[in-house]
Amino acid sequence: MRDFGILPRLYVVESLVAGGCINLDQSQAHYLGTVLRKVEGDKIRVFADGAGEWLAELSSLSKRRVEITVLEQLRTASAGPDIWLLFAPIKKTRNSFIVEKATELGIALLQPVITARTTSKIRMDKMSAQIIEAAEQTERLDLPQIRDPLKLQTLLDEWDAGRRLVFADEAGDAAPAVQALASIKAPCAILIGPEGGFTPEERALLRSKPFVTPISLGPRILRADTAALATLSLWQAVSGDW
Amino acid sequence: MRDFGILPRLYVVESLVAGGCINLDQSQAHYLGTVLRKVEGDKIRVFADGAGEWLAELSSLSKRRVEITVLEQLRTASAGPDIWLLFAPIKKTRNSFIVEKATELGIALLQPVITARTTSKIRMDKMSAQIIEAAEQTERLDLPQIRDPLKLQTLLDEWDAGRRLVFADEAGDAAPAVQALASIKAPCAILIGPEGGFTPEERALLRSKPFVTPISLGPRILRADTAALATLSLWQAVSGDW
Repeated sequence: MRDFGILPRLYVVESLVAGGCINLDQSQAHYLGTVLRKVEGDKIRVFADGAGEWLAELSSLSKRRVEITVLEQLRTASAGPDIWLLFAPIKKTRNSFIVEKATELGIALLQPVITARTTSKIRMDKMSAQIIEAAEQTERLDLPQIRDPLKLQTLLDEWDAGRRLVFADEAGDAAPAVQALASIKAPCAILIGPEGGFTPEERALLRSKPFVTPISLGPRILRADTAALATLSLWQAVSGDW
Repeated sequence: MRDFGILPRLYVVESLVAGGCINLDQSQAHYLGTVLRKVEGDKIRVFADGAGEWLAELSSLSKRRVEITVLEQLRTASAGPDIWLLFAPIKKTRNSFIVEKATELGIALLQPVITARTTSKIRMDKMSAQIIEAAEQTERLDLPQIRDPLKLQTLLDEWDAGRRLVFADEAGDAAPAVQALASIKAPCAILIGPEGGFTPEERALLRSKPFVTPISLGPRILRADTAALATLSLWQAVSGDW
């Protein structure tokens, strides 16, 4: 068996067909030429949303530009389960962490949410770069979708009740996470509050919605990024594709 | 009910008794005086390993030094389940992340492991500071123990077979994580390899040990830090104290 798993793997926006030529961007050229010291004729893997993963060859290479020729398809397109993460932006490094880890853990869509105690912003351009890097790393074949930030109230008003919304409720009487999540199949969404949590009003609002399930993540207080990652791991393990 | 949960919470190494006076260190003095702008008479919470959590009052405060008087015990000492994390040091930020998140998720002991592909070191002094900060944040009453790095072979040679050792095996035929972990009660340990994974020889060695259980973490490739936190979350949810 030929092992292509060791070849570098890059995301491209172009459509992929055998024999097609693609110009990679400057940062990809730098990565392949300067960091990995690849030369003309070397092979890489490329993938694109909906096009699967393909073997490609570096057909010309300069400092600023790499042209590749697409050779053959290695894996057909596939996507993970329909699971969303709605998260209130927190500090910069922790936002990056959430975006990277959620992508690795197979999130389908990332939705920043503005809550009463949200004090941080998120840079959507950075988020795009981060999901691409994480998707390249984690061997997934699709990119998570990302949506512009929305207020919690707006999100709830416009919610499609066919998708269950799970939120980690620190208040104590919620069901243990794994038990609750085992009965919540896709489509599903996980909502994580900011540092400092939801306000009592927000918690009451959430609990009043028939499509919302509160869950408990144990006796210790978790940071928002930890709660996001833990809940997503649990869901993937009991109702997702693990 | 008096809500002490909003009071700042600091770890101290001293023993705690009602009426006792404790001098906090310079960084704690800075945190209380300059960051939080506390003044004499203000209350805080302190905790120490094995002594539980206590209410205390700032009895004198200067730029470099804070003296507190211990008032009354708020919570008696308790520890979480007997779960260890053995991890191969990776890049600096990712090590910090593992240490912080494992502490939040209730790890009892952190053991750095040197494997064949381990290329990074870990700063033990930094690790101490990180577990204290994370323990303060997460409301736990004990600190995780930390041990000096050991080679994988040494660890396995000296292993107490009464503690099951779980490792995330990327090779594919391992049991799904949640199913395997549900039957592995404390005492338990989770072993996570470096970026690049274990070598085939290390995997064979691990699988040859009767106390080792390989598990699978789904179809995507996870970074080492993601795998560590996902496994720990799952174990806490199905066999720990969540």
